[in-house]
Amino acid sequence: MKNEIKIFSPATVANVACGFDVLGFCLDTIGDEMVIRKTEEKGIRITKIEGYDLPYEAEENVAGVSALAMYNELNPDCGFEIEIYKNIKPGSGIGSSSASAAGSVYGMNELLGRPLDKTKLTFYAMKGEALASQCEHADNLAPAIFGGFTLVKNACPLQVLELPTPSDLYATLIHPQIEIKTSESRAILPKEIPLQNAITQWANVGSLVHGLHTSDYKLIKDALNDVVIEPYRKQLIPHFDDVKNTVLEAGALGCAISGSGPSIFALSKGENTAKKVEQAMHNVYSKSNIHFETYVSKINTQGIKTL
Amino acid sequence: MKNEIKIFSPATVANVACGFDVLGFCLDTIGDEMVIRKTEEKGIRITKIEGYDLPYEAEENVAGVSALAMYNELNPDCGFEIEIYKNIKPGSGIGSSSASAAGSVYGMNELLGRPLDKTKLTFYAMKGEALASQCEHADNLAPAIFGGFTLVKNACPLQVLELPTPSDLYATLIHPQIEIKTSESRAILPKEIPLQNAITQWANVGSLVHGLHTSDYKLIKDALNDVVIEPYRKQLIPHFDDVKNTVLEAGALGCAISGSGPSIFALSKGENTAKKVEQAMHNVYSKSNIHFETYVSKINTQGIKTL
Repeated sequence: MKNEIKIFSPATVANVACGFDVLGFCLDTIGDEMVIRKTEEKGIRITKIEGYDLPYEAEENVAGVSALAMYNELNPDCGFEIEIYKNIKPGSGIGSSSASAAGSVYGMNELLGRPLDKTKLTFYAMKGEALASQCEHADNLAPAIFGGFTLVKNACPLQVLELPTPSDLYATLIHPQIEIKTSESRAILPKEIPLQNAITQWANVGSLVHGLHTSDYKLIKDALNDVVIEPYRKQLIPHFDDVKNTVLEAGALGCAISGSGPSIFALSKGENTAKKVEQAMHNVYSKSNIHFETYVSKINTQGIKTL
Repeated sequence: MKNEIKIFSPATVANVACGFDVLGFCLDTIGDEMVIRKTEEKGIRITKIEGYDLPYEAEENVAGVSALAMYNELNPDCGFEIEIYKNIKPGSGIGSSSASAAGSVYGMNELLGRPLDKTKLTFYAMKGEALASQCEHADNLAPAIFGGFTLVKNACPLQVLELPTPSDLYATLIHPQIEIKTSESRAILPKEIPLQNAITQWANVGSLVHGLHTSDYKLIKDALNDVVIEPYRKQLIPHFDDVKNTVLEAGALGCAISGSGPSIFALSKGENTAKKVEQAMHNVYSKSNIHFETYVSKINTQGIKTL
């Protein structure tokens, strides 16, 4: 059995327009790298962090907290060192903390001979996620660990559904380099919503799931609408309506806020359209004085993986 | 081409626990019979109604109104007589008016050589349904016309999705012979609902659609929950909680209000369980002084049909 592995822990998009708090999908071209190493000395140690300035104390680092939760339960006769090469900027809305929280438990599980299944890994990763967002949720973790599109039916007890991924589906993202606090993007949401909007939303969720099963791109397009959350949160994201209108004109199936923002994602049929959509996003934001990054990615059906 | 056909127009269950206003499924063993006959004399005439006391004037009868809507648009060089042999009691919550509204347009379409597709038939049937319920909705019509499980993504423009039906799924129904006015069952609903409940509901809708696609009976069971509508409407149905608890103990996957009630439906895996569930419903209601009927039915994947 290996004593060290290097892994790719992907960025993810939560909510997916209509599926606030339950749907997510996994990206391919953006993610962190991590090295997990067995040690004779017991315990969890974070020995290297590159890319962003994050705490080295395991109890204060999301990768450390998830690792400790799993470690304390399994109580193996070894310890682990974790190196984190962070590419996903914290607070970008594409699952930065989830990538860290998932990476450590995935790597440890591989080095221990896979005693845990993916649901159990997600469960431990949620402990790390809770450090970052003050609540245990799995809408970024589930796609990171399972790959593809996921639906978190329940957080407690955790129940993750793996939805099919049509083969020609591509994501385009823009990350405007502004800060939105998760607490702020939660606080802006209403406690109650009109029943009529809720009906529209669950018709869309059901339609999106059916569209993914039947590779019906027209239906996926029709379903990628968020009438509940977007009207509130888009206020926090400069040029959101401009980006959305422009990318839909460029041929995207849909466009919405990634997680709690500020990143915006679009889904397209085919890589060519996804690249046109990237250009459209670029055109809108390059007129502003906000720094931004854009990405095109196939949907990653494998999820987190050993390099 | 035939000048006369006899058809079976089935009862249906709308809402299906989590899918208020969008989901429905079709029954096999309960339905109306209708005879549609071409006549030289132009126009729509209802010439016979048996079973229940309903108006003969086409403009005041749901089957007549849907027939007229289609007739006036197609303007064929013949007329039609309609005979209605009504088995589904009006106001039972299992799509009585939908069966009538769907039957006339289905029959005319057959006699005219099928110029219209199922979506268009549903569209005309909605005009008849509107006479009964003061609003154009398709959550009973879609399963009656398409068969199986349906999701009405949009009412206007009408967009119906045909969901797969697991082969071993059976419905059990109890119809307590009490009257609930549709207007009352609408008025009792809140205009706004907690966001958290809406999230639970759309997680359930997505899960149910996934469960139908994967024939995952355990997931179907987990998804058949209504946290939004049932808490309000169940007050209008005597012994609802008793029936629900008893049928779940008897092995039903789920149990909820059929449409706006008073009928209650359960779904089960296998006919044997569905029959045990029928007995359980029987046991609860036979202690009351309310008259009731019970039914067991396979899910009808064909929908309305020529006899």
